[in-house]
Order: sequence, then structure tokens, then C-alpha cells
Amino acid sequence: QKEELELAAVYVSDAQHNRNIFFETQPQAVRLYLLYNHWLLVVLLYFFIMVNLLLAVVEQPALLPVPTWASMLVELVCLSVFSGRLVHYAKVIPRDKFWKDPKNLCILVILLLTLVDMIIYGALKATDIYSVRWSRVLRPLLLVNFTEGRQLRRAFRSIRNALPQILSVFLLFIFSILIFSLMALKLFGKRGLKTNSGKPYFTNFLEIVFDLYVLVTTANSPDIMMPAYNASSFFAVFFVIFILINTYIFMSVFLAVVYNNYKKYLKEEVRQLVRTKRHKMVRAFAILQERREGLEEPVVSHAFWNQLVRLVQADLSHAHRELLWSVADQHNQGYIGKLAFVQLADLLNIQVIAVKSRPHPLQRWSPSLYLSTPSRWLCRAVQHRVFVMVYDLIILVNAVFIGLDEEDPLVRNSEWFFLALYLLEILLKLYAMEPRAFYSRHNFWNWFDTIIIVSALVATIINTAMTSVGGYSSRQILDIVFTLRVLRLIRVVDSIKRFRVIINTLIKIGPTMLTFAQLIIVVYYIFAMVGMELFQGRIQFFDSDSPGKLSCGNPALQDSSFAQLNYCKNNFNNVVSSFILLVELTVVNQCGFTAVTHPSARLFFILFHIIVVIIIINIFVAFVLEAFFVEY
Amino acid sequence: QKEELELAAVYVSDAQHNRNIFFETQPQAVRLYLLYNHWLLVVLLYFFIMVNLLLAVVEQPALLPVPTWASMLVELVCLSVFSGRLVHYAKVIPRDKFWKDPKNLCILVILLLTLVDMIIYGALKATDIYSVRWSRVLRPLLLVNFTEGRQLRRAFRSIRNALPQILSVFLLFIFSILIFSLMALKLFGKRGLKTNSGKPYFTNFLEIVFDLYVLVTTANSPDIMMPAYNASSFFAVFFVIFILINTYIFMSVFLAVVYNNYKKYLKEEVRQLVRTKRHKMVRAFAILQERREGLEEPVVSHAFWNQLVRLVQADLSHAHRELLWSVADQHNQGYIGKLAFVQLADLLNIQVIAVKSRPHPLQRWSPSLYLSTPSRWLCRAVQHRVFVMVYDLIILVNAVFIGLDEEDPLVRNSEWFFLALYLLEILLKLYAMEPRAFYSRHNFWNWFDTIIIVSALVATIINTAMTSVGGYSSRQILDIVFTLRVLRLIRVVDSIKRFRVIINTLIKIGPTMLTFAQLIIVVYYIFAMVGMELFQGRIQFFDSDSPGKLSCGNPALQDSSFAQLNYCKNNFNNVVSSFILLVELTVVNQCGFTAVTHPSARLFFILFHIIVVIIIINIFVAFVLEAFFVEY
Ligand code: NA
Repeated sequence: QKEELELAAVYVSDAQHNRNIFFETQPQAVRLYLLYNHWLLVVLLYFFIMVNLLLAVVEQPALLPVPTWASMLVELVCLSVFSGRLVHYAKVIPRDKFWKDPKNLCILVILLLTLVDMIIYGALKATDIYSVRWSRVLRPLLLVNFTEGRQLRRAFRSIRNALPQILSVFLLFIFSILIFSLMALKLFGKRGLKTNSGKPYFTNFLEIVFDLYVLVTTANSPDIMMPAYNASSFFAVFFVIFILINTYIFMSVFLAVVYNNYKKYLKEEVRQLVRTKRHKMVRAFAILQERREGLEEPVVSHAFWNQLVRLVQADLSHAHRELLWSVADQHNQGYIGKLAFVQLADLLNIQVIAVKSRPHPLQRWSPSLYLSTPSRWLCRAVQHRVFVMVYDLIILVNAVFIGLDEEDPLVRNSEWFFLALYLLEILLKLYAMEPRAFYSRHNFWNWFDTIIIVSALVATIINTAMTSVGGYSSRQILDIVFTLRVLRLIRVVDSIKRFRVIINTLIKIGPTMLTFAQLIIVVYYIFAMVGMELFQGRIQFFDSDSPGKLSCGNPALQDSSFAQLNYCKNNFNNVVSSFILLVELTVVNQCGFTAVTHPSARLFFILFHIIVVIIIINIFVAFVLEAFFVEY
Repeated sequence: QKEELELAAVYVSDAQHNRNIFFETQPQAVRLYLLYNHWLLVVLLYFFIMVNLLLAVVEQPALLPVPTWASMLVELVCLSVFSGRLVHYAKVIPRDKFWKDPKNLCILVILLLTLVDMIIYGALKATDIYSVRWSRVLRPLLLVNFTEGRQLRRAFRSIRNALPQILSVFLLFIFSILIFSLMALKLFGKRGLKTNSGKPYFTNFLEIVFDLYVLVTTANSPDIMMPAYNASSFFAVFFVIFILINTYIFMSVFLAVVYNNYKKYLKEEVRQLVRTKRHKMVRAFAILQERREGLEEPVVSHAFWNQLVRLVQADLSHAHRELLWSVADQHNQGYIGKLAFVQLADLLNIQVIAVKSRPHPLQRWSPSLYLSTPSRWLCRAVQHRVFVMVYDLIILVNAVFIGLDEEDPLVRNSEWFFLALYLLEILLKLYAMEPRAFYSRHNFWNWFDTIIIVSALVATIINTAMTSVGGYSSRQILDIVFTLRVLRLIRVVDSIKRFRVIINTLIKIGPTMLTFAQLIIVVYYIFAMVGMELFQGRIQFFDSDSPGKLSCGNPALQDSSFAQLNYCKNNFNNVVSSFILLVELTVVNQCGFTAVTHPSARLFFILFHIIVVIIIINIFVAFVLEAFFVEY
């Protein structure tokens, strides 16, 4: 009986959290499954995935070099954790299901390949032969393939579904670039024009193709046009038409195709989710159902239902549970049918904001004082419109003071004054409002305020203490103080009504953006690993004015605009600078790397642009568009 | 009787072409109105608007300088044409309607202001005082305000409707930039960092705001980040967050808001159009209606209907007219009611593609020859799949030959061979297909082929003739020959099925894109006029290696990257280079102009970015998105 209830609770919980795992239903397996879903184990898994990814910081080429055996030891620990997790999963679900699921096979292959790579690498390292840790590109795939990466897998599926249509447009787009390149070769190739760096202009077909591809991203505009334009104004027409067709029309068509597929796929996903959710709830119902006299359909009694909900969500208050029951059992019959039962998963997800007028703690402590006329007057004042306006004014004045010179003692000391004012505001609000209501989950701005102000206070105190004791202020602490000081000003947008809709939408889509963050990390990580193997050490950054600075330590870049513009730190020499370079490539596809390696290195950059800008960024834009359409 | 019929025909014609003018209904006025809508007068008006706009080419600062009196004489002619058109319009519509319409007042004010400006300018010019032709910025507004600029007005209305919501997002966006700027000032201002050109880095708040605004457009990425990034990798976080929020999220939100409004407005516009169309048709019906015995509702007889349609569209064939009538009079009663009558405007707009199997002219000339077995076999061969594939292969081979070196006599002479093949293809197709069907309006690619091939033939013959007679080939003719030769290759996409959908959609949205072209011309023209007055002569372009080349003729640009990158031709010294510069600014907001004038000149560039990139380009993207959603 208890075990059946537990099984039903697991079904409901899975439905509530959109989990979709076919676990075995023996009591033993169910308990194992509950353990599998335990938040601690999930957090632990994510922690080790993170550690595994972060190993790139200490591996060659390293930001913080450590001995190879140390990083490999940590990696072995990670691998064993992943293996343990996989074995746990294998125990939870039926054997045949386990082997049929490509996710599991994928993880298994990744683990094996990593192990093989580690052995080879270790052996070669021991004999001092240069070798490549090629299995590192597989690491981010673990993020996708573990059962918890549901959202991420969905994003990848959505990309895969859009691919055929994207491919059509992409081929046409490439055809367009080829045609324009051929035309450029015929029009400009024989004119003897020179680029700004004195090289022949538009004489090699493949280089033209690459240059025009980069022009689509607008990264080399107007440089690529200038030699032709300087020769004759008429040639500008070629580039204007090129940009109109390829940058504006084709890029819009890409967005249209991606957006269209995204919407279609989203609908299909939602339908699927609703279906599996219903399926799980029906199963739970089948376990708990009983037949009553005079009723054709089986029902679930209030008692069973209560036990079930208590198992599913232990922290639910009695009142809340009764509320949910009264919603389900509308006719107050003491039992509910299948239809009402199935709704439970959704009901549990609804956040009931308890607008209970709980008395203020101060009121309980001393009612006469808290309810006295001056106290009441104070509470009313704090909640008045003028109070908000006064503080908006204070924020504006504060903004001016922040902009002024820190050297001035008046300005420096004013900080204490403003900090006091902000603290006073929070305290006054806490006086006027019940603290638990003030810090309820949906009050984003109260949390924001308190965290920022308290951190600023702590940082300012530490900074002042260090200055008065050691006579110097730490640059890092000062940076934090400054940042917090400016962040304080953001609060002003909440009091302007027209901004609130936009901000709330942005806050609401925040969690989903984390999926995109993961997606970007997976893709960036793979490109960073490949890029580090291909390009590490080719470009050097020199901090001081060493002679190598003018060529980024590579004679091929001597007098290049890459070195002149001081881009030397944009390199693949460690994982952090690789990631930052990839961000830059996402924004504008500028790359001096083809000068220091083979021209075919351009393929790396074109591939990156196709995957990140044409596909992922467009999906991101589609996502923001859709989110705003739903909100507005 | 005849006059009533004419009036009804005007109503139907207006409904058919979505015209919406409240003309007077006296026979005299109706005839005047018909004249007003005559295509010759409309073309004449557009011609003179074009001439008026093109005056900027010959006015100071001129591309082709002419005496001031000449350009002013032409402008006077334009003004009188516009006045005549306005007077004509005033005679057509009721007096009170004329004065209530802001369009007419706007034109009147523009004409008067232009006249005043011309007089002042002429007087000042005569006394050799420098003066500004400020009324030139008003010229493009004529394009909007004449009654024919309906589409353009709709586009402007759609922008105006989106403005309040755009403004909300824009203010929030500016707030975000201000906050980031303040943070940048506090974090980087006191570090003593230097930009690549040796100036202090991020020390002036207003300059930071401008630099970060430009960073949103990605034009100065990664330059703006490098000094901070070189100082510490940690600071890259600031820029990554900045770009994420402002470039990706805010720009997507702008697109969402613009797109949302565009869709909403489009629906409203279409509803309005349908309403006015119906209204016009009901009026026409009221004129022609008659009462018949035994019928409650008035009707229109077949005879009247026939006369009406003949008046509205004289070139309609008898068969086509009968087809329309049979659609309207479904029960073959000899008369139609109001409901059937109202549909006429839409029926007339439907293009009936006559799939009449008209005999081939050759068949009529010599049936026995054309219908002989070899002839039939030839026709079947031409229409066979293999024929298309053979020609696709020829195109590919041709592409390779185009890419090869022209110096080689084999390559040069192969051109004749390919030209002959393409001509043969067209002739064969014309042999197999009825010529009028081959060149029917919807056969875009047949028209394209024929025009390109015939032009290429003519240009190649001229080129060869010039080479063999004069011994030299004209560069211009050669450019045309090369361009046509490459354009020929485009045809290959039509035979690939997956491309056809995309291409057809693009061809279909082509005409509507002309509205955007006009919109862009209006905005560009105004900015070009203002820009020319503000910046003319500040930056000079030197063709030869004169000493001024290194500073673009302005000491302020000595050793600047603007001069080093050879951007000197990007200037506002005449209307053509202004337009090209504005295209470049649309693509990336790069501007060296603030160096040579006051820093406040930046406002010009920011304003341009807001209007063109944030508003117009987004509307264009929204338009392409919507068009593709409808097609797919
Ligand atoms: Na760009």
C-alpha cells in the first residue's frame, strides 16, 4: 500500500517536473529512482561536469599550469563520477531501454574515448612526444547527454529540425557569394588595384570568396570596398547590391527560416509534453483508483489524495493543500474522477502567492507601539507615492555624485551619506511591510536592492578599513565597490511604469536564457579546444614594450593591421582568451589568424560563423521575439 | 446615361487600384479626375520629382558643377510642374476637402519655402555672401505627400504607430548605456590606460557614452575593448555582458516591438483597404442599379455591366469578360445583385493566365513541316529533363571558363561558343513553345535569359568590333560584358527545385521592396543634404600620391587610422559620395568625422543609426519575415 502510494507520487512528481524516464516499478527500483532524482546527486553531477570542463584552464596550453598527473587525476575522478551516474541510471530503467537509448551509448563512448585518449596522451607524454588531447572536444557533449540536459537536448533537436530548410537557404546564399566573387574577379582582378597594405586586390578567387563572406558579417566594411571605390565611385554599386542581397535579405531569410521552424517545433514540443504529462498522471490515477457503489467511473478518495500530495511536495502547507483539493473536488463529494486528478500536476506548479495579512513581527512584539498613530503614519508615508519619488530623486543625485571625481573628499564622503539613505529605505520598508512578504519570491527588486546595498556596505567598510590601516586601497575591492555603486542606480527603472513591462518580460525569460548559455558553452568549448590545438602560440601577447609587440611575436604579422591595432591578446593561447576571442568572433568575424597559419584556417572561422551567428544567434533572436509576442 | 456610366467606371477603377480620392462627381470634374489619374501625367510627375532630387548632383557642393542660374531654372520648372499638379488636384476634389488635407498643405508649404529659399539664396549669391540651400531637405518629402505616394505614406504611418513602443524600449536602452558608461568611467577612468592612438582611455563620460553606443552597432569591436582587456583579462567580462545585453537582447527587443507593430498595423491597413474598396463598389452599384419586377433587391443588368467593364479595362478580351460575368452571375439570370457586383474590383485584379493551346506560328505557316516526326521529336527533346540538365552542365563549364584567364585565346574565343549555345537554347525553346506563352508575364526566367543573352551578344559584338577596328577595348564595355557573362550563370538556380520556392518568394516581394527603396531614399536624401552642409570639404580625397593623402587634406586627421585605412573618399563632398557614405554608416557606424568638426557632430551619426538601423532596417526585416511566413 505504501509502496504503491510512493510509485504514484513518483509519477505525479515526474509529471510536475516534466521528467520523462521509463523507470522500473519494483519498490526497490523506485527508491533507487528517487535517489537518482535527488537534488544533491544532480548538483554533484553538474559540479563534476563543470570541473571536467574547467580542466581546460590547467591543461596545456594552460592559464594556470599544473602537473599533468594532477589534472589527469581530477579527470579520472570526474570520469568515475560520470560512470557511477550512468550505472545508477542503468539500474533504474529496464535493461533493453538502457541499451536502446542513444544518450547512454553516447556517454559510454565519450567515457571510453576519453580514457583511451588519456592513456595514449600519458604514454606519449612520458616518452616526450608531442600529442593532442583530442577527446577534450567531447567533454561538453556530456552536458547534453545526461538525462538532466533535457532543455539543452530540446534546443539541439530544434536546430536539427531546422537544418534541412536552413541548408536550402544556405546553399543559395553560398551560390550568391560565388556569383558575386566571380563578378568581382572579372571586374577588379585585371585593374592592377592594390589593397591598403599593398597586396594585389581581388585577384585570387578563393580569397575573394572569403573576403566577401566576411563582408556579409560587415566585419571588413568598408575596407574591402575602398580600393575599388577609390578607383571609381561607380564600383560602390557592386558592394551596395552585394550587401543589400547578402547581408540584409539573406540574413533576414535565415532568421525567417529559423524562426518559422522554432515556432513549429515549439508547438510540437509543448503538445508532446502535455501528452506525456497526462500519461504519467493517468498511471498514478490507475494505482490509487477505487470503485465506489453507484459510480460508473473509478475515483480517488480525499484521504489517498492527501497522502499522495504530502509525498510529492512535503513543504506544502495544509491550507494550500486544502485549496488545491477544493479546486479539484468542485462539488465537494469527497472523491475526484480521472479528469480532475490529471490536473494535479499543473495545479502543483501554480505558485499561490499567500496574500495573508500576517501581522508584522513588531506588531506581535508590541502591538500598542506598532499600531500607535505615529507608527501608522510612518507606514503610510513609506507606502506613499511621494516616498518613491523622493528616493528616485536621491538616486539621480547619487548618479551625479558617482560621475564626479573621487579625489574630492566631499564626493568620497558623500558615499556614506547615500549608503545610509539606502539602508534607511530598506529598513523603513521592512518596518512598513511584513518581512516574509517583502522577501517573497516574486519581489525581484526587493531582493536585488537588499543584496546590492548590503554588499556595497560590506565592501565599502572593508575598503575604508584597508585604506585607514594599510594606507592603500585594494584595486579589486575598489572595483567591486564602484560596480555595486552603479548597479544601485538600476533600481530606478522599476518605478517607471512603461519600463516595467519590458523588464518583467526580460526577467521572466531569464531562466530560459540559461539554456542558450549552455548551448553557447557547448559550441564555444568545442571551438575553443579545436582552436587551441590549431592556433596556440602563433600569436603572442607582450605586456611590456618588448620588440615582439609590434608583430605579436610572429614575423608574419610584422606591420599588419592586426598587430598595429594591438590585437595580440586576441589569441588561442589559453582557454580564457579563446573564449573571449570567440565572443569577439560572434560579434564581428575579424581574424588575423589566416596570416599566421594556412589559408585553410579560414574554414574554422567560416564554420564558426555559420554555427554561431547564422544558427544559434538567430534561434536566440527567435526566442526573444516569441517571448515578447507572448507578453505583449 | 453615358456620364453616369463613366462615373461608375471611375469608382470601380479606384476600387481596383486602391485609390482613395474624394473627387467631385460633376461630369466635368470626373473627366478632369480621369486626366489626373492618366499614367502619362503620373509618370511626368515622378520624372520631375526625380529631376528635382537629382539637382543635388549639380548644385554646390557639386559632382558636375553647372552655373547656379541653370540649376535654379530647372528647379523653377519643377516647382511649376508641382504647382500645376496641385492645382489640378484642387480642381478635382471639393474645396473644403482640399484645405483639410495635410498632404496638400504640406506640398504648398514646401513649394513656398523652396521659392523663398531660392530668392534668398540667389540674392546672397549675387552679393557673394555664403548661404545655405536649406530647403533642399524638403525635396524628398514631395515623394511622400503627392497622392501617388500611398505606399510610402503607409510605411511612414506604420513607423509613426510603432514609435511610442519603440520609445519605451529606446529609453530603457539609453538608460542601460548610461549605466554601463558610468561603470566604465569608474572602473577604467583612473587606471591611466591609453587607447591604441595614445589618447587617454575612458576618461570622459560623454565620449564613453558615444563609444559604447558605437559598440552596440559592433563597429568598433574589438578596438574599444582592447586597452582594458590588455590591462586585465577580467575586464573582458564587462564588454561581454554589455554586448549580450545591448547588442543581442535590446536589438532583438527592438525587432520584436517593430515586428509586432508592423503585423498589427498591416492587419488594420488591410481591413481599411477592404472597407473603402467595398464603399466605392457600392457607390458604383447605386449608379447602375435598376429595379426589376418580382425582385426585392435592385440589380445590375448584363448589358450595363458589360459597358462598365469595357470602360474600366478596355484591353480585356471578350472571352475574359464573359468568364468574369459567369463567375458573378452564377445562376445565369442575366443580372447580378449587390453582393456579386462588389466582387468585381477583386475579380479584375485576378490575372487569368490564358492556357489556350494557341497553335505555334510555324505550325500555321507550314503545318506539315512543324508537325512532321523530326520536328515533333525535337520539341519533345527540348522539353525533356535531360535538355535542362545538359544546359545546367554547360553553365557550370562556362563558370569555370569565366574564372580562367582572359588572356588565353582559347578562353577568349570560347565565349563565342557559349554565346552560340545559349542563343541556340532560346531559339530551340521558342521553336518548341508558343512565343507569346514563352514570354508571358509570369515567366520571369525566360525574360531574364533573353535580355541577358541578347545584351551580352550585342556588348560582345561591340567590344570585338572596337578591338579589331581601334585596336583597344573600352574598359566600360568590357565591364558590362563581364557582368552579363556572370549574370547568365544565375539561371542555374531555377532548375533546382529546393531553390525555386525561395527565389519565387524573393521575386514576389520585389515590388514591395521598392517602397522600402523610396523610404530609404527619403531618409538618405535628408541626411545627405544636412551632412553636406555640415561636413563638406572637411575631408578631401586625393587621387594621386599627393602629400595631403596621408591626412585626407585635414591636419586633424594626420596619422589617424581614418587616413591610414585610406577612407578619405568617405566624405560628404558631393551627393553621390554622401549616399555611399550613408550606406556604409548603415552597415557599420564608423565615422572619423567627429575628429574634424565639433564632437556634437556625433549626434548626426547617432540619429542616423536610430532612424535607419533601429527603425527602418528592423521594419525591413519584419517585412521579409512576414513575407516568408506567408509563403512557407
Ligand atoms: Na558589424
